[in-house]
Formats: sequence, C-alpha cells, structure tokens
Amino acid sequence: MTKLSHVDAKGKARMVDVSDKPVTLRQAVARGVVTLSKEAFEQVRDNTTSKGDVLGIARIAGIGAAKRTAELIPLCHPLPLDVVEIKLELDTQRRAVIIEARASTRARTGVEMEALTAVAVAGLTVYDMVKAVDRTAVVSDIKLIEKSGGRSGRYRAKE
Amino acid sequence: MTKLSHVDAKGKARMVDVSDKPVTLRQAVARGVVTLSKEAFEQVRDNTTSKGDVLGIARIAGIGAAKRTAELIPLCHPLPLDVVEIKLELDTQRRAVIIEARASTRARTGVEMEALTAVAVAGLTVYDMVKAVDRTAVVSDIKLIEKSGGRSGRYRAKE
Amino acid sequence: MTKLSHVDAKGKARMVDVSDKPVTLRQAVARGVVTLSKEAFEQVRDNTTSKGDVLGIARIAGIGAAKRTAELIPLCHPLPLDVVEIKLELDTQRRAVIIEARASTRARTGVEMEALTAVAVAGLTVYDMVKAVDRTAVVSDIKLIEKSGGRSGRYRAKE
Amino acid sequence: MTKLSHVDAKGKARMVDVSDKPVTLRQAVARGVVTLSKEAFEQVRDNTTSKGDVLGIARIAGIGAAKRTAELIPLCHPLPLDVVEIKLELDTQRRAVIIEARASTRARTGVEMEALTAVAVAGLTVYDMVKAVDRTAVVSDIKLIEKSGGRSGRYRAKE
Amino acid sequence: MTKLSHVDAKGKARMVDVSDKPVTLRQAVARGVVTLSKEAFEQVRDNTTSKGDVLGIARIAGIGAAKRTAELIPLCHPLPLDVVEIKLELDTQRRAVIIEARASTRARTGVEMEALTAVAVAGLTVYDMVKAVDRTAVVSDIKLIEKSGGRSGRYRAKE
Amino acid sequence: MTKLSHVDAKGKARMVDVSDKPVTLRQAVARGVVTLSKEAFEQVRDNTTSKGDVLGIARIAGIGAAKRTAELIPLCHPLPLDVVEIKLELDTQRRAVIIEARASTRARTGVEMEALTAVAVAGLTVYDMVKAVDRTAVVSDIKLIEKSGGRSGRYRAKE
Repeated sequence: MTKLSHVDAKGKARMVDVSDKPVTLRQAVARGVVTLSKEAFEQVRDNTTSKGDVLGIARIAGIGAAKRTAELIPLCHPLPLDVVEIKLELDTQRRAVIIEARASTRARTGVEMEALTAVAVAGLTVYDMVKAVDRTAVVSDIKLIEKSGGRSGRYRAKE
Repeated sequence: MTKLSHVDAKGKARMVDVSDKPVTLRQAVARGVVTLSKEAFEQVRDNTTSKGDVLGIARIAGIGAAKRTAELIPLCHPLPLDVVEIKLELDTQRRAVIIEARASTRARTGVEMEALTAVAVAGLTVYDMVKAVDRTAVVSDIKLIEKSGGRSGRYRAKE
Repeated sequence: MTKLSHVDAKGKARMVDVSDKPVTLRQAVARGVVTLSKEAFEQVRDNTTSKGDVLGIARIAGIGAAKRTAELIPLCHPLPLDVVEIKLELDTQRRAVIIEARASTRARTGVEMEALTAVAVAGLTVYDMVKAVDRTAVVSDIKLIEKSGGRSGRYRAKE
Repeated sequence: MTKLSHVDAKGKARMVDVSDKPVTLRQAVARGVVTLSKEAFEQVRDNTTSKGDVLGIARIAGIGAAKRTAELIPLCHPLPLDVVEIKLELDTQRRAVIIEARASTRARTGVEMEALTAVAVAGLTVYDMVKAVDRTAVVSDIKLIEKSGGRSGRYRAKE
Repeated sequence: MTKLSHVDAKGKARMVDVSDKPVTLRQAVARGVVTLSKEAFEQVRDNTTSKGDVLGIARIAGIGAAKRTAELIPLCHPLPLDVVEIKLELDTQRRAVIIEARASTRARTGVEMEALTAVAVAGLTVYDMVKAVDRTAVVSDIKLIEKSGGRSGRYRAKE
Repeated sequence: MTKLSHVDAKGKARMVDVSDKPVTLRQAVARGVVTLSKEAFEQVRDNTTSKGDVLGIARIAGIGAAKRTAELIPLCHPLPLDVVEIKLELDTQRRAVIIEARASTRARTGVEMEALTAVAVAGLTVYDMVKAVDRTAVVSDIKLIEKSGGRSGRYRAKE
C-alpha cells in the first residue's frame, strides 16, 4: 500500500507497536480524590447513603474498570492483569475520599492507564452514590504516583 | 422472601427504582481539565504527539465511554442517549485541556453520570496520548455544571 | 431473498419480533441458592473470606450481569431497566446463600432473563469468593418465581 | 464555554442530536456476500467444517453484533432493538454465502448500522469458520437494501 | 498511603495478586443441568423450539460467556483462553439437558470460573429458548467437576 | 460424560484447542474498500462530512474493533495484541476509501480475524459517517492479504 498522500499527518491514531519489547513485571500506582459536601461526607463516613456502601462499591467499580481499560482508552493495549488493588481512605479535614489504585502485570507495556482508569471510575462511582444529596462533589487530582518495569525504569511522582 | 436478618444494612447496593418516574427530556453538562507539562501542551496544541491527534481521539473516547456508563458505574441505569457532545478547548495560560461533555436523553432518570464519565475518559485519553512525554499530567475538576429535566428541576453549578 | 432451500430448519436462531407488542410494565423475580461447606458458610456469615464481603460483592455482580443480559443470552432483546434489586439471605440450616433478584422495566418484552441472569452471576460470584476454601460449593435451583406484564399476564411459580 | 478557537473544524466527531426527532418504527435491511473456494463451499454446504455449523453460528454472531453496534461504531446511538433477523443462503453458482439482515426498532434514529453490522460480522464469522481450509474467502458487497421510518421515508436500493 | 483506619475490614474486595505464581497449564471442567417440562424437553430433543436449535445456541452462548468471565465476576482475573469446549447431552429419564464445559489456559491462575460461567450461561440460554412453552425450567447443580494445574494440584469432585 | 448420542454432529461449535501450539510472533494484514458516491467521496476527501473527520474516526473504530474480536466472532480466542495499525487511503479513480489493517501478537494462534474485523468495522464507520449524503456506499473486498507466524508459515494473497 502506498503512502496515504491525500491525508496529512494529523489525526492518525497510532498504537505503539510493543512486539519487540520484553515481557517484564510492570506496576503502576495512581491516585485521585473526591471532595464532598459536609452532608455527603458524613453519609459516606457513616455508611448511610441511600444507595449503599460507597467505598465498597467504588472499589468494585474501580477493579472492573481497570479490567476494561483497553475498551475505554482507544490506543491502549489489551493486557492480562495480575492484580488490581484499590484503597479508599476518608480524609476528614478535606471532607474527601482519597482513592489509590495499584495495577500489576507481566507484559510488554505498562499499566499506568489501568491504574488511572481504576481511580477515575472509582471516583465517578463515589459521585454516583452521593449525588442524591450532593451534586457539587468533584473528582480531582487523578495522577500517576509510581510506575516500575519496562525500559524507562522506575518513576515516582514528586509530592 | 423474609428480611435479610443476618446481614446488616451496610454494603447493600441499591439501584433506585425509576419505574414510577415520568419519561422527560434530561440533559447534563459536565466539565473537567487536564493540566500538562510545557512540552506536552505544545505537542497537543501543534497536534504532533507521537500517538496522533489528541483532541480528536479524546472526543471519540469520551463519546464511547458515555455510551457504556451503565457498564462502568455499578448502580447506573442503562439508558438510550439522544446525543453526547464533547468539546475540548486548549487553555494556554493554564497549559490545560478543558473538556466539556453534554449528554441528553428522554428517560426516567438523569444523565449526569454519562456526562461525567465522558469527561473522565476523555481526560484519561489525553493522559494516554501524552504520557510518553509527560507522566505528570493531571486530570482534575471533574464536576457537574448543569442538569435539567426530572423532578428536581434545573441545577446550575456556581462558578 | 428466496427461501434458504439448502439449509434445513434446524439451527436457525430466531429473535422474537416484538415490534407489535405494547410497552407495558414488566417485572420478574428469580431465585437461586448456593450451598456451601461448613467452613465456607461460616466465613460468609462472619464476613471473613479472604476476598472480602461475599454478599455485597455478589449483589453488585448480579446487578451488573442483569444489565448485560442481552450480551450474554444470544436471542435476548436489549432492554432499558428501571431497577434490578438483589437480596441475599443466609440459610443456616441448609448452609446456603439464598439469592433473589427482581428486575423491572417498561418495554415490549419481559425481563425474566435479566432476573435469572442476575441470580446466576451473583451465585457464581459467591462461588468465586469462597473457592479458596470450598471447591464443592454448588449453585442450584435457578428459577423464575414470578412474572407480570405482557400478554401472558401474571405467573407465579408453585412453592 | 467559548468556541474552540485553537482547533480547526477537522476531526470533530459529532453525534447527531436526535432528541427532537419523533419515535417511529424504523426498519433496515442490509445484505452482503462471502465468496468461498470450492472446498470451503462444499464444507459449508455439507455442514462439515471442522469448527461446526457455519451458517448457524454466523447467524448468532450477526445477531450479537447488531446488539453491540453502538459499541463498535463511534457515533452510533445506543438503541433498543425489536428484532434482528438474519438469513443465510447458499449460492452454488457463485460458491457464495449470501447474508441478509433485517433490524427493526421504535426509536428516534434509524437502524441501518445495526443491519449492516450484523451482515459484516456474520460474514467475518463465515470467514473464521472456513479459514482453516480457505484463506482466500472474501466478504463483499455489504450494503443497505432497504430502509423505512423517519423523516427521509422509504429507501430501496436499485438492483 | 496510610492504613484505611476509618473503614473496617468488611467489604474490602480483594483480587488475589498472582504476579508471583508460575504460568502453568490450567484446566477446569464444570457441569450443570437444566430440567424441563415434558413439552419443552420434547421440543429440545426434536429441535423444534420456536427460537431455533437450543443446544447449538446454548453452546455458543456458553463459549461467549467464558470469554467474558472477568467482566462478570468482579474479582476474576482477565485470562487468555486456549480452549472452551461445551458438551450438551439430553437425559431422557430426567427430562434434562446436561451441560459440561471445559476451559483451558496457560496462566498464573485457574479457569474454574470460566468453566462455571460457561455452564451457567449455557443453562440460562436453554431457559430462554424454551421459556415460551415452559416457565418452570430450572438450572441446577452448577459445580466444579475437575481442576488441574497450579499449586493446589489436581481436584476431582466426588460423584 | 458419554457421547452426545441424541444430537448429530451438525451445529456443534468448536473452538480449536491451541494449548499445545507454541507462542510465536503472529502477524496478519487485511484489506477492504468502501466505494462512495461522488458527493460523499468529495466530503470525505475535503474532510467536510457533517459528522467529522471520516478517516480519523474510522481508524479509531477499527482499532477498537480489533481489540474486541473475540467478543464478536464466536469461536475466536481472546488474544493480547502488540499492535493494530490501520491505514486509510483515498482512491480518486474508484471514488473509494482503501482500508488496510495490520495486527500483531505473540500468541498460540493467529490474528487474521483481528485484522479482518478492524477492516470491516472501519469500513462500516465510513458508511456511518457518510450515510446522510450517500446510502449507496458499499463495503467490499474484505480479505486477508498476508499472514505470518505459526505452523502454516507465511501466506501472501495473489494480487
């Protein structure tokens, strides 16, 4: 097939070809935060929201989303996953739910997107569970905290 | 079936029963922001990232995610969608991509989660497309901007 | 298109055409049971399985599966759902988890399969959560308990 | 939100907003053809392929794909479906499988893509089932044959 | 991240971390049974149900479900699959369809859930195909029959 | 389990058991073509269709579909993918979009179906994007061009 001379370089989605990369243990940790109104925070803390246990359900949602990352993010590679672990912590001072996800695999490419997707969807689930009492909740600061494995070695975000 | 006397009230996920709610036109607008490094921002602006046109692909990812909201958020209702519209704007001052999603349907329940999910996944896609040059990108401020339809009437977030 | 003269009548999967049926309120209740070993039952009852809260996670799994029934059952119609409700009860005498799912919609066809799928997947999830201590768990008696709406009227299983 | 002044008009994926369109009965018929080698055609005709009954399995695959059209085609609306019907006919002269799919719904937008997707995936499934004996099979002539419902009225392809 | 001091141990869904387990050949066989009314059994046996060939379609449904196990069961690992094989046998005495599924992979964790999910969804599909004539069909006795590979060695259920 | 004496050999879907095949680098290239009306071709070429950039969106759709091949094609194995690459070329003479997809993996079975599925869904997406101005567009000539890896060695279609 000749070069696509009629189409300029813009917009050409490209998956990275990882077939020559070695299979190594890849890990990634991502974090995010959901800030809540006073009432919503108290319901989450006291586990009394009308839809059920916010943290437990957000955890399941995050794990489920990590497994479907390649369906959501167009240029992500489908990967096996050795584990997805999600921690949710209540921060009383900030009236916030802190979400941390760790993903791990042995593959030819990293699992940052899996960890970040887990955090984002866990955060959205928190929103869904409190939205009857708090429409102002905000999901923020979704970012990569740590990453290891692969050519680029270990990365650790500055605090 | 008798009451579940052996299990306490915690953890009982509950979908809201919407069968008695009227079908009305429901709309929601959500917004979020992805802040980038100088280099990543310039690549997005100049449309020269190695993976392709960031904004175009993020838009598709957001629309796709909105359609799958009920698969991602455990207690969401599956809904038909009349439209999902996603706008992406570059904010040079903040070196950020501003994402706005609007979802609309005629249904028995609202589409906030669809709009928020579209924003979050579009934001994650931006991250995926720039991560080779910027691991520090942050997806933030995912929140509901506006909502109409349904019993609770119109909501508009304070600026 | 002429009749498929080369293929006999066998194997021709056929979705029922529901376009002439009226939209009515449709409900279905299904039930099933998971019988456990003594040790597994105690861990579920005491909420001490190594994978987490069995009943809470099975509930989420059942709701999620109901929403995806049309993807699993080849000739099912994709339906909106107004609610899926799942109850899990411990039966100490039988060392069993009793699962009951109720699905409801306003549509042109019934929601039996959604209720049954919710029960089956909730039951499989119970198995998954206890399998480290009990490989002999059995998911049984998945059946329709009640159904209403549609031309055929109300159905109620005999005890 | 101001206009996206930094991004030109290209690449902006846009779902059509159907919220103002009326719900009407929409139907579409699509067709396609898979041409086979002599050996593959005979195995399909005699129902002796190593993977099983080609036509029966292609039919199921096509119905399943129609239900997932909105997940595959980025700007398609998720729709309920009243029926998907797939016919497969053997054309001995052309050594071909003729595939015809009909989709029907009551919705605000048409079901052409559902019918076309059913045909394409049924055709790919035929390929998959015969590929051990025939890598040269070709899926062709996937096109809309008929369409009704909606503002644009009835369409019928010329022979 | 500090320990989640505000949340007790209950409800914390946990995927097992398999990253240190060896990749070995893993197999699992599961079984289940669908009991039918006299009329439904005869239609299945004579392949004359109105929806089509029950056993053929249930087989496809079971294979498809096995491939999607990790989407259905919240804490399951996504796995490649080397094969899923489904046998359906008619038991005239019991007026039942006996379903047996075998799954096989080379992975860090077992495929019991894949085999069990295949059986359950094949069983639900049998229900779906006969429900127009038999609402009383019951899917039962879904259990693990055999398992091999991995640290725990070979397991074989007692008859 | 005894042989299924009541069911004849027809219709028994069979996944190929690949557990004894070696993991090798597998590649496949597939191609297809969408022929358009004069008006539709010009809109695609000038990137002025009402739904957005046809080629860019078709490329994303094709990549997404390749990742979901095992969900669409009943007897396909779920595979990791090292890359999916899609090229779209405009052929002015034929007023056509030429689509070429390359898929690559290291696995026990080939990726022909992934490449073919990518082509088919990219082609359907082109149809979707132009259908407002051209209902007569045809997706054709979806075929395998090249294949390497595995026992059967290299295959290259004749021109």
